[in-house]
Amino acid sequence: MQNKKISKAVINRLPRYYRYLGDLLEKDVVRISSKELSEKMNVTASQIRQDLNNFGGFGQQGYGYNVEYLHTEIGKILGLDRKYNIIIIGAGNLGQALANYSDFERRGFYIKAIFDVNPRLIGLSIRGIEIRSIDELEDFIKHNQVDIAALTLPKSKAAQLASDLTKWGIKGLWNFAPTDIHFPQDVIVENVHLADSLMKLSYKLSEKDRPADN
Amino acid sequence: MQNKKISKAVINRLPRYYRYLGDLLEKDVVRISSKELSEKMNVTASQIRQDLNNFGGFGQQGYGYNVEYLHTEIGKILGLDRKYNIIIIGAGNLGQALANYSDFERRGFYIKAIFDVNPRLIGLSIRGIEIRSIDELEDFIKHNQVDIAALTLPKSKAAQLASDLTKWGIKGLWNFAPTDIHFPQDVIVENVHLADSLMKLSYKLSEKDRPADN
Repeated sequence: MQNKKISKAVINRLPRYYRYLGDLLEKDVVRISSKELSEKMNVTASQIRQDLNNFGGFGQQGYGYNVEYLHTEIGKILGLDRKYNIIIIGAGNLGQALANYSDFERRGFYIKAIFDVNPRLIGLSIRGIEIRSIDELEDFIKHNQVDIAALTLPKSKAAQLASDLTKWGIKGLWNFAPTDIHFPQDVIVENVHLADSLMKLSYKLSEKDRPADN
Repeated sequence: MQNKKISKAVINRLPRYYRYLGDLLEKDVVRISSKELSEKMNVTASQIRQDLNNFGGFGQQGYGYNVEYLHTEIGKILGLDRKYNIIIIGAGNLGQALANYSDFERRGFYIKAIFDVNPRLIGLSIRGIEIRSIDELEDFIKHNQVDIAALTLPKSKAAQLASDLTKWGIKGLWNFAPTDIHFPQDVIVENVHLADSLMKLSYKLSEKDRPADN
């Protein structure tokens, strides 16, 4: 189970499984069949069985899945059985929106500080998280265990800052700047492009209006 | 080309192709080989050829791809050869961040209004886009052509509002509320879960630290 190469598509679906199972747990659901789970999640039951088989299955013939167990196990696979410290670079609207998500903490992601260049923002706090000057960034990283830096910066500044961050030891970048950042080897980058999901939406909207081929 | 069923994975990659080609265009690059494009995009050249073959190819043996032509054609596939009017429901940090993205307009997405319940926000403007009372929502939709509603709302309010919006004729929902919304048939929903990409990041970070199987 441990280091087998799991396909990107499966990894992409794991957070959804995790969220759904979390919702079921909140509703005190104890067990669920792959059929019920598939209806809730809008994927086929065989897809679910296949996906979970990558990690050893978890299901029992005739019983289905134990919700709490499956939730815990998928959480472990996702690395959610430990804590992550996050800093946010950029205290604009998006940076503030991220700082306001209390949901992240529930999953073990703790936002420790926000950094910005704007003197009018420096010193303010969001949910008790201080906005600090970008000049303190290197020092902060050196004196605190920071696992992930979220970048909510203009495109023009993102690449240089990402490079500095990795030089200072950051291994995880959650990049919202509208440019793809790649690092070789041991730095993990997750690029988030809000416009991409908007384009998927327009694809599907216009697909609907297209005349069918025959 | 028109209504052939294209796999989700391909559709997921199209916005990236479009963005990369747009970057190349800005740098006045006229043509590119699938090999060069693949290096830039971090996918294999054969993947690119395969993906684009879904739409008839576009490449010429020994020449590669004409950047402008490919950009235009992928844009058409993505439905970007027309305009979309967007409204944002929720003028919190995330709603304001979306309203501030001028990039969307470049791709044909025009934000027409923002709606909120907070009297302190109603009447303010973001980049010239007015924040209106949620009480005006139904009327606004009836008197304006609205293609897409972006939902930046608490989980507890999202489902009901989504249902109202579709009743009033909205066909596209871009949902940022931390709950999956599904509608049958002719309403297209794109659910964006920021936490999902964070969990992918933690998956990859913890995968790195796992001892290899053998």
